[in-house]
Amino acid sequence: MPIAVISLKNIMNAIKIDTKTGKLENYTKRIVRKLSDMKEFYFNKSVVDEILSKNDPVIYEVYAFETGDSVGNLSFATTILYPGKIGNEFFMTKGHFHEKRDRAEIYLGLSGSGLMLIMDDRGNAYHVKIKPHSVIYVPPNHAHRAVNTGKEKLIFLAIYPSDAGHDYGTILEKGFSKLVIEENNSVRIIDNPKFKNQ
Amino acid sequence: MPIAVISLKNIMNAIKIDTKTGKLENYTKRIVRKLSDMKEFYFNKSVVDEILSKNDPVIYEVYAFETGDSVGNLSFATTILYPGKIGNEFFMTKGHFHEKRDRAEIYLGLSGSGLMLIMDDRGNAYHVKIKPHSVIYVPPNHAHRAVNTGKEKLIFLAIYPSDAGHDYGTILEKGFSKLVIEENNSVRIIDNPKFKNQ
Repeated sequence: MPIAVISLKNIMNAIKIDTKTGKLENYTKRIVRKLSDMKEFYFNKSVVDEILSKNDPVIYEVYAFETGDSVGNLSFATTILYPGKIGNEFFMTKGHFHEKRDRAEIYLGLSGSGLMLIMDDRGNAYHVKIKPHSVIYVPPNHAHRAVNTGKEKLIFLAIYPSDAGHDYGTILEKGFSKLVIEENNSVRIIDNPKFKNQ
Repeated sequence: MPIAVISLKNIMNAIKIDTKTGKLENYTKRIVRKLSDMKEFYFNKSVVDEILSKNDPVIYEVYAFETGDSVGNLSFATTILYPGKIGNEFFMTKGHFHEKRDRAEIYLGLSGSGLMLIMDDRGNAYHVKIKPHSVIYVPPNHAHRAVNTGKEKLIFLAIYPSDAGHDYGTILEKGFSKLVIEENNSVRIIDNPKFKNQ
């Protein structure tokens, strides 16, 4: 993980969150995830290919304020997860374990509604609702993925140890044990038949 | 630092913040700081004694959700800092270094307005405004104290490494290098003549 350079100005001013857009002032890193960046993460490959043959929607954006990666240092980021579905599967983040598995993470809902899937390394999973002014504690050794089950943008703040690191590869390889889908206009959380529990 | 016991129920539900009262649902620890608990922290001892001869106002309250104190784990807390002054000095928190000096902390303003004094171990200090939807990064090795300079309750969320620990003793002994006072209806940040820089 590169050591981010943060200026004194960045530290000496509060870093404002625009709760309408989710944008962080003075961010050090911005990520835009389009469908093409995460096509392996969705269940229905043929729907993914069909959508990508026409356009490449932005699924989510991240504005991060990352500090030096010493033990005990903290970084934070806002995520804007757009509403939508790939087939019947709701827009979601890639999801990740931390490279340092025992690093926890704290989330705070800012706008919109959705849920956080939280899974241990054997695939045992549960979910927590994301809504404004609610805090979600992701314990050490758990992967986590946000899912936008609403009609609006889902915006949340994440705070994480600066040395945590993001391991997306394990999720890419094994998948998440649960899928979050829409069925008969309801949100359903079902077992992922493609999940590789090994 | 004791290892907090958190129930599965606490983890599997989002922990709601009541932004009017600042109260956290499912907190594991509550602290109420009255003036008598922190009388040594204010500059004007005779004003403190005069107030305490009549009553003992609550200066601030904390609702904390503390998790096990392993390296990389995270805890969080809301603070409700009441408006008021002791003489011309605004209501404030005790302020603390972390016992593990290199642990950082992240604050998010929720309601009201004030400022965070941030000071290194030689007394070099700066301040950052606290306001709703603004994030404050407290770097490793810095003490920090919140001050309510407004007329309303100042409510904020803090996220900190669970193994950080609170060192109030150093502040009790040396003081903060700056005082935040009201003068001619303005907020002023002045040098603390009693600060012990050693």
